[in-house]
Formats: sequence, C-alpha cells, structure tokens
Amino acid sequence: MTTPIQTAAMLAIGDELLSGRTKDKNIGHLADLLTVAGIDLKEVRIVSDDEDAIVEALNALRAKYTYVFTSGGIGPTHDDITADAVSKAFGVPCLHDHDAMKLLGDMYAGRGLPFTEARQRMARMPQGSRHIPNPVSTAPGFIIGNVHVMAGVPQVFQAMVAHVVSELPVGQRVISRAIACPFGEGDIGTALGVIQKAHPQTSIGSYPHFDGIRFSTELIVRARDQALVDAAAADVDLMIEAIRSDKQAALSRDLGTGEVA
Amino acid sequence: MTTPIQTAAMLAIGDELLSGRTKDKNIGHLADLLTVAGIDLKEVRIVSDDEDAIVEALNALRAKYTYVFTSGGIGPTHDDITADAVSKAFGVPCLHDHDAMKLLGDMYAGRGLPFTEARQRMARMPQGSRHIPNPVSTAPGFIIGNVHVMAGVPQVFQAMVAHVVSELPVGQRVISRAIACPFGEGDIGTALGVIQKAHPQTSIGSYPHFDGIRFSTELIVRARDQALVDAAAADVDLMIEAIRSDKQAALSRDLGTGEVA
Repeated sequence: MTTPIQTAAMLAIGDELLSGRTKDKNIGHLADLLTVAGIDLKEVRIVSDDEDAIVEALNALRAKYTYVFTSGGIGPTHDDITADAVSKAFGVPCLHDHDAMKLLGDMYAGRGLPFTEARQRMARMPQGSRHIPNPVSTAPGFIIGNVHVMAGVPQVFQAMVAHVVSELPVGQRVISRAIACPFGEGDIGTALGVIQKAHPQTSIGSYPHFDGIRFSTELIVRARDQALVDAAAADVDLMIEAIRSDKQAALSRDLGTGEVA
Repeated sequence: MTTPIQTAAMLAIGDELLSGRTKDKNIGHLADLLTVAGIDLKEVRIVSDDEDAIVEALNALRAKYTYVFTSGGIGPTHDDITADAVSKAFGVPCLHDHDAMKLLGDMYAGRGLPFTEARQRMARMPQGSRHIPNPVSTAPGFIIGNVHVMAGVPQVFQAMVAHVVSELPVGQRVISRAIACPFGEGDIGTALGVIQKAHPQTSIGSYPHFDGIRFSTELIVRARDQALVDAAAADVDLMIEAIRSDKQAALSRDLGTGEVA
C-alpha cells in the first residue's frame, strides 16, 4: 500500500523579514519538522504586511499544495493583517471568534489587565476557522481549509506548529543517507551524474562546503525506500574510493618523477 | 527630484533549504544590503532543484520587480540546473560561455587539475549573459535582463552580491528609527493604530519579543523623509510615556488600596 505523497508550502509574512531587521527562524524549523513527518515542503514565500500580496500568495499556494503554513501578522497591532487577508482569500467575513474572545477575556481578567480593542483584535479570524492552541501566550492561531495560520514570534510559532504537525497524518518518510565527501564538486560531478542516472528513483543532492581554503562536499541520497537508498549510497561510496585511489596514484607518480629529475 | 523606487525579489533555489538540511543565510544578508542601498525587497521565494518550479517562479518575479536575485544551483553537479532553467525562462540557449571557459580552464591548469566535463558545466550560462565575478572560487555568476544569478554557498553569494549591489543605482534610502517599548502589543495596539493613521506616509512596524515571561515590543518608524520619521517617532515616544504614567498611577492606586484594606 502506498501512502499518497503530501506536499506543503510555507508563507512567512512580515516587512521585518524583507528589511533584514529580523532573520527568519521559522522556515528552517518547519522544514525540519515536515521532513520528520514525511511531508514534502515544496515552496516557501516571504511577503510583506500587504493585503494584496498575502491574498495572492495564499491563493496560489493553497491551490497547489496539500497544506499551507503561515507565520506572522496575527498580533494586536495595526500591521497585523493576516486574519483579514486570509478571510479575503477565502471570501468569508473576518469576525471576533466567540471562543477566542472568551479565552482571551478570561486570561486578561485573571491578570487584572483591560481587554482592550487591540487585544480583542487577536480573537479575529475567518468565519468557520478552528483554533490552533497557543500554550505560550494564549491568543490562538487558526485553521481554515488547508491553511494553518500561526504567529511569527519563534517560541509561539514552534509551540503552534508542533501541535499542528502532530495532528496531520504522517506521510511515508523520505529516508536519507548523508555521505561526507572530501572532494569538491568539480572532482565528482561527472561520476555523480552517472550514478544519479543509474538510480532514477533516488534523489542525490550535492552540497558544497567551503572552509576558506578548499571545497568539500556533503552528498545526500534520498528515497522513500531503504533498499533504493542503500544501492545508490553504495555506488557513491565506490566513487569516492575510486577518486581517492586516482589521486593517490597521481601523487605517487608526481613524487616519483620528482625523485628521478 | 524624486528617485523612482526600485523593487527587488529573491529566488533561493535548492532542495536542501526545503528539507531543513541547510538553514538559509543568504536571504537575510541580501535584505540587509538592499535596505542600505535603498532598494525595496518585496518578495522572496524558495523552490527546489526542479526546472519547472524555477522557471515559473523566475518568470513571475522578473515581470513584477525591478531586480531579481537568485542563489544556488550553479555548481558542477547534476542537481545544479539553474543556468538551464534561467535560459528556458528567457527562451535562449544555455551555452558554454567562451570567457568563462577560458577563466576556469586557466585556473584549473594553474592548479594542475583536469578541466573535467563537470567543471566545464560551471561555464554554462544563458546566451547573452554578463559575468558576475567570483573572487572566492572563480566560477562566475551571471546577469541576464534584470536577473542576477549567484552561488548558494554563503561566502561566494556574499562576494557576488556585494559586487552586484555596488553596481546598481542607489535608491532613495528608507530612513528608520527603532524605539524600544517595554510594553506588549496588547497595551499599545490601539494607540499605535491611531498614530499610524495620523502619519500615513510613514510605515510603523511593531515587532513583539517574548523573553519567556513577558512580551515587549520594538517599534520601527520608516519613511523616505527624515522629517516624517521624526514627527511619527515623537508621537510614539509620547504614547510610551503616557502608558508608563497610566501604569504607575494604577500601581500607586492599587498599593494605596492595599494599605487601606
């Protein structure tokens, strides 16, 4: 029985991500979680706090992928417009949710703080949404259709996304094996291309690293079947050994020539 | 004389960014550089090493913004398909560039290394491209139309983008002032919304920070004119002082009540 492959996109919302003021930490976190859950993150977009930009990106992504996850723009200030934009994208009114009003009202009453108009903004969500619980600071995220709307503050995003991903059906995980390769991509590229062609059901990624002096590479073999990963990885190991032997032979030859001269 | 506002988008290319294996460092770096240069970064997309995905994203972005900057996928391995995808997007052949072949051929000859088929891949670019110099590892990036194609390895990306941005006309910089606010967004949201409405030519951003116990906020006032920033920032300062006074008065009242009781 094959599990259908589930895909996902992320939409990170916020001027601060595009001005450089804030360096995003949520994309990488979501990517890690989805990889563990066997859900393929296929695309990420970052847009500003602009209603048209959010609506356009959201409608493109939700039509194309199984799930969409958003971060940012659900706080109490004037630049928090995600709830309005998501409502507009779905063509439903954005309302003060009854349960969210009670949750927040009780929380502020318990802390002796006024439940201001600004704070009430955090209870607004598209009509028909379900809550995403927020164990950090109470104000809930929400789910409408295949879109999961979460806070941008990393601690809150992480708490929300842990809950959300735990409730999704687990996909068939991609199995991966990482192979450290001491040679740069120029040394391995041709052979690696041949190996990739010989193992079409795997995906072999090559990730160069530069230490300031020379390049090395991390090679990652991925597939949804262990035997496929093992077979391709064995060929990659052989390739690395062959290049090492070639280089040692060339070195011996050069040293040999040196002694004769 | 007003400088026309220049906009930009970034397209980060690579499976490793979407699997979580690599946490992107290039988006934030580009955002910082463009902010300094007075160019508005409006949108970022991350897509996988998939030709259709790259072509689609690139064509959408290059039609919409003054500049597009890409990272990733220009190395020598089979999964480096950015040059092919960019060529396809522009409808031109992807060729081994004569000057790039000479540059790379000379470099490898000087190091006594074979100029392999894989290494020659790094000289491929869309017909009609101009080079972006690579002082780190020689293989050039390229510019075609308004699209700037750069490496994904952060050291190389940073060297390339520094060169590219230095050659673009400098836009009218956005001036910003950051104001530390000790109160959470729930305390300031309503008043801040009023201030934003009173200063429509500025953009006032509110960035919550959670230290594990309570929220505080950084407020950033932005505009392309110093006087506009100053006027809005003065109102924000007044708002913070007013909230502080209110809270102190409330605290004194509560303590007073406590003494009487």
